[in-house]
Amino acid sequence: MDEIGRKRWAIAEGYIPSESCSQDRALLSHETACILNAGDREAKITLTIYFADRQPAGPYRVVVPPRRTFHLRFNDLKDPEPVPLDTDYSSVFESDVPIVVQHTRLDSRRAEISLLSTIAYSQG
Amino acid sequence: MDEIGRKRWAIAEGYIPSESCSQDRALLSHETACILNAGDREAKITLTIYFADRQPAGPYRVVVPPRRTFHLRFNDLKDPEPVPLDTDYSSVFESDVPIVVQHTRLDSRRAEISLLSTIAYSQG
Amino acid sequence: MDEIGRKRWAIAEGYIPSESCSQDRALLSHETACILNAGDREAKITLTIYFADRQPAGPYRVVVPPRRTFHLRFNDLKDPEPVPLDTDYSSVFESDVPIVVQHTRLDSRRAEISLLSTIAYSQG
Amino acid sequence: MDEIGRKRWAIAEGYIPSESCSQDRALLSHETACILNAGDREAKITLTIYFADRQPAGPYRVVVPPRRTFHLRFNDLKDPEPVPLDTDYSSVFESDVPIVVQHTRLDSRRAEISLLSTIAYSQG
Repeated sequence: MDEIGRKRWAIAEGYIPSESCSQDRALLSHETACILNAGDREAKITLTIYFADRQPAGPYRVVVPPRRTFHLRFNDLKDPEPVPLDTDYSSVFESDVPIVVQHTRLDSRRAEISLLSTIAYSQG
Repeated sequence: MDEIGRKRWAIAEGYIPSESCSQDRALLSHETACILNAGDREAKITLTIYFADRQPAGPYRVVVPPRRTFHLRFNDLKDPEPVPLDTDYSSVFESDVPIVVQHTRLDSRRAEISLLSTIAYSQG
Repeated sequence: MDEIGRKRWAIAEGYIPSESCSQDRALLSHETACILNAGDREAKITLTIYFADRQPAGPYRVVVPPRRTFHLRFNDLKDPEPVPLDTDYSSVFESDVPIVVQHTRLDSRRAEISLLSTIAYSQG
Repeated sequence: MDEIGRKRWAIAEGYIPSESCSQDRALLSHETACILNAGDREAKITLTIYFADRQPAGPYRVVVPPRRTFHLRFNDLKDPEPVPLDTDYSSVFESDVPIVVQHTRLDSRRAEISLLSTIAYSQG
């Protein structure tokens, strides 16, 4: 298939609640960047996290194989540093091949879960 | 009316929860791709599903008549294979005429439903 | 201010639940197209509703004054016909001046409300 | 990093519920414009709020330092006037450098929270 997507993506919203009503991984409060690499080449992606009152964190490095999707949980990022909870952030993705990025949060601070999702901003 | 839309669309987010608090079809946990064909020609659409750790599934074939909408439930796809539950996926739509695609999930794992929706990524 | 927006917008998702847990207008299940006319000229808008299995309804006519917003509830459309409940639909907006359209649903079928929102697809 | 984003953004949806089930700031009903300035220059932003039946409010002035994010709560705007509650509005952002804007609402009118989010409309 022809490649679909763009090489630079930004998600202005970011916030991982520290509270969850469940310890089940599927229902734990989390933020996800769903990354689709529909092309025939591996995608090497660099991720930078921006904060309100400190220098950005990163680069984080992510690889998505050809013809695969990767639902990256910001909660799982460890290297060079974890993403702090209860803290506003934004993220920028730079890939060497076209990808598609969508942002989703599952919030389970209360007994019932709440969801949000949006396509990220793309360029390039 | 003039045609509106594009021919290629991608939804990076995909996840159908296996749990539902209701067996009512309207309230069953589901993922939908809402497809609008506002033009005067039938839309022949090919759908491919991408996974994290296996080859893509498809092509699935969908036809939307002229001046009609079709709210496609991923749960209903059967041929060539059903979409697995509790599994991360992405999807790409390729149409022979311009269409508009929007992604929605209704999650009823808990007693209260939760919704997300976003316009898909478009190109071409 | 310079004009901002586009003249043609499409919302592929559409569904008004017939059930609501509240008769308070603010909490009644509803679908809204939020229309911003930030320019200096009145916006004359034509709205067409598309269905899965019948001819489109409309045109509906909406006027938004200069420098005003209008949060149009699909539930309130009457002329030429109301939008049926519990029915899949899509909508297309055509304006004579640039506008911005965002789609929101408040779902109160259950005791707790659920929300979705997305920027519509734009062209022209 | 190269700049990412655009200089003009519009959010057609706007509504701050006056009710909240919690006085915890994190769970208070609120509307947010998440603004990312990933570039190396300070972003000077002018914000205008549009209503259904009166002249627009503003300009509000916001500054986002280079390489920072700012999650602006509309509830916090004071100068030249607060944003009225339970009132439909839209907003337009004009920046002197490229930024990315995403719109989020947390609604806690009921015991369980509900979320919506979407990328804003961009131009220029």
